[in-house]
Amino acid sequence: MANGSRLVDLVQTRIEEFLADRGSILLDIGTDLGAPLEFSRRFLSGGKRFRARFCHAGWRAVIGPADLDPAPVVAAAAALELFHAAALVHDDLIDNSDTRRGAPSAHRLFERLHGDSGWSGDAAEYGRASAILLGDLILGWSDELLDEGLARLDDAAAARAARAEFMRMRTEVAAGQYLDILEERAWSTRGEHAQRELAERVVVYKSAKYSIVAPLRIGAAIAGATPAQQDALGEFGLPLGIAFQLRDDLLGVYGDPDVTGKPAGDDLREGKRTLLVAIARERLDPGRRRILDELLGDPALTAEQVAVLQQTIAECGAVDEVESIISTQLERAYTALDAARIDDAAEAELRALGASVTRRTS
Amino acid sequence: MANGSRLVDLVQTRIEEFLADRGSILLDIGTDLGAPLEFSRRFLSGGKRFRARFCHAGWRAVIGPADLDPAPVVAAAAALELFHAAALVHDDLIDNSDTRRGAPSAHRLFERLHGDSGWSGDAAEYGRASAILLGDLILGWSDELLDEGLARLDDAAAARAARAEFMRMRTEVAAGQYLDILEERAWSTRGEHAQRELAERVVVYKSAKYSIVAPLRIGAAIAGATPAQQDALGEFGLPLGIAFQLRDDLLGVYGDPDVTGKPAGDDLREGKRTLLVAIARERLDPGRRRILDELLGDPALTAEQVAVLQQTIAECGAVDEVESIISTQLERAYTALDAARIDDAAEAELRALGASVTRRTS
Repeated sequence: MANGSRLVDLVQTRIEEFLADRGSILLDIGTDLGAPLEFSRRFLSGGKRFRARFCHAGWRAVIGPADLDPAPVVAAAAALELFHAAALVHDDLIDNSDTRRGAPSAHRLFERLHGDSGWSGDAAEYGRASAILLGDLILGWSDELLDEGLARLDDAAAARAARAEFMRMRTEVAAGQYLDILEERAWSTRGEHAQRELAERVVVYKSAKYSIVAPLRIGAAIAGATPAQQDALGEFGLPLGIAFQLRDDLLGVYGDPDVTGKPAGDDLREGKRTLLVAIARERLDPGRRRILDELLGDPALTAEQVAVLQQTIAECGAVDEVESIISTQLERAYTALDAARIDDAAEAELRALGASVTRRTS
Repeated sequence: MANGSRLVDLVQTRIEEFLADRGSILLDIGTDLGAPLEFSRRFLSGGKRFRARFCHAGWRAVIGPADLDPAPVVAAAAALELFHAAALVHDDLIDNSDTRRGAPSAHRLFERLHGDSGWSGDAAEYGRASAILLGDLILGWSDELLDEGLARLDDAAAARAARAEFMRMRTEVAAGQYLDILEERAWSTRGEHAQRELAERVVVYKSAKYSIVAPLRIGAAIAGATPAQQDALGEFGLPLGIAFQLRDDLLGVYGDPDVTGKPAGDDLREGKRTLLVAIARERLDPGRRRILDELLGDPALTAEQVAVLQQTIAECGAVDEVESIISTQLERAYTALDAARIDDAAEAELRALGASVTRRTS
């Protein structure tokens, strides 16, 4: 089970099994529920499965070479993927994103269903309403799948600890998401010097803890980790998670649309106040900073304006600074990993995962 | 603990205790999270607490006169109120409702916060985005509060059964809500004879099971109910729940705005395809039916148009028919209650609750 692609298969199978079970409740109520079920399946196939893989790696780091039943950790890993799918359905709605992984986002799928079915009323409104409900449904399911996994665990204290980690993650990521949409609007009322710190707070809660630290800790908790083991994983996970998000910030501005599945400069049109933007603002002269502020968040930015922004942010040295922070954080993560007492195979798995989340192009 | 208002106090205290605990996680992250925390408190004070009361009544019906620790059922009852608050936050967004219990709905509160704070961007968009996240946060919390209650239960099988009831409720109500918004748009493509049945399906899943049967069953499960006891409660709860929703349908069209806290004829402007509407459509001649179809769902209906619709629906006999169904369903519920082997005090509590949910004016 050490093999990454084998884990991804196990997680996919567990998700399909779970959706078949819950889907039968839906279809018993009415065939009209086939559409949301089908869309939930679509959002739960594919994806990079980073959270599932970190969850498994956290478990592996604690159990070492022991040969334990992977069913509880596979279910927890699958539950994290459900949670993430639900968050993305709502996120795309919040950000007004038309696409997800190169395909239509959930609210656009429902909108299209409305158009194709000849129903009355506003298709976009129906799309948004349905996507809110789909996200709620999958959110509830994520928790149920976690429970199914933890019920198979003999160690009741480990199950309680894993659930507590999952709960804290849920609250913290909601807080991080709220701060993210808040800073998109509130930045102009913040002091110039506060913006970097506020952007860092979003990075930590919306991304680093949520995408890496929490999955690691949930997996470790299932394995019965000691507080010292949890701390060691956190010291690796937090800087890695920061590096992960900074790579995401760069991809949101400079990513290749064919690879990311998102339009070029997507974050610029959305007006995300990322750390990259905060650093650029510190580096730009007042004139250019004003141009950045004026263009950022305009959903109608032309390709030329996107190119101007890309160039402005790069030329002031912000991209280099972010790349340098990524390197520093990665180094910090690997140093922590070296210091941790983890068996060699698990350490190699964590190291490989670290590389894949920070060197990716999508 | 038999006293209804005492239960409501215990539930309120439990909710406040829980919010104080989770609120401290939020405030540790940043004081900017004070606003969503304050709004969640606001939506969790007051309300009729029907779901909490049915949960407690279901528990009481099974334990009889025994004097057991009420903490687990109080937590479960409080969890149902959290779940309901989250559902209402999202529901108001879905329905574009400006008010809830005579006060601004969550997205309007956030919208106002934006306006008062001098932030940039669109206030309404920020309001909607924040309300999605607030609902998600409270949704997760409801599940955590249930868990805290069940953790105090010695009977592990009872805890598992209660959780299974809660999970099924979550899936079924999401299905019912989806069918509700679907029928609002799809009705015109349905056969004339199917509309009553489709409206009934929404009544059962969105309301009867969710608001009454599930709370009863969760409370009963905590008390270690046998399948026969659960069936008996279901035979009482389902017809009562149908009657409850039909009262709601009538209030949505004829309710006094000063009492309901919602604008007059709110359901008419929203275009809800209730059973009341389905029955009216069956009874109206084609000309009047066309007028009903044209006006229903127009958010800009004038007070005069609302009055015309109210009169049209009443004059065709639909209101009388709905009142008669309410009576029949209530009778069925009470007959089931008489047949159930429940101690006298619990039976009296259920009977009083039944009366209060079907005779209410708000």
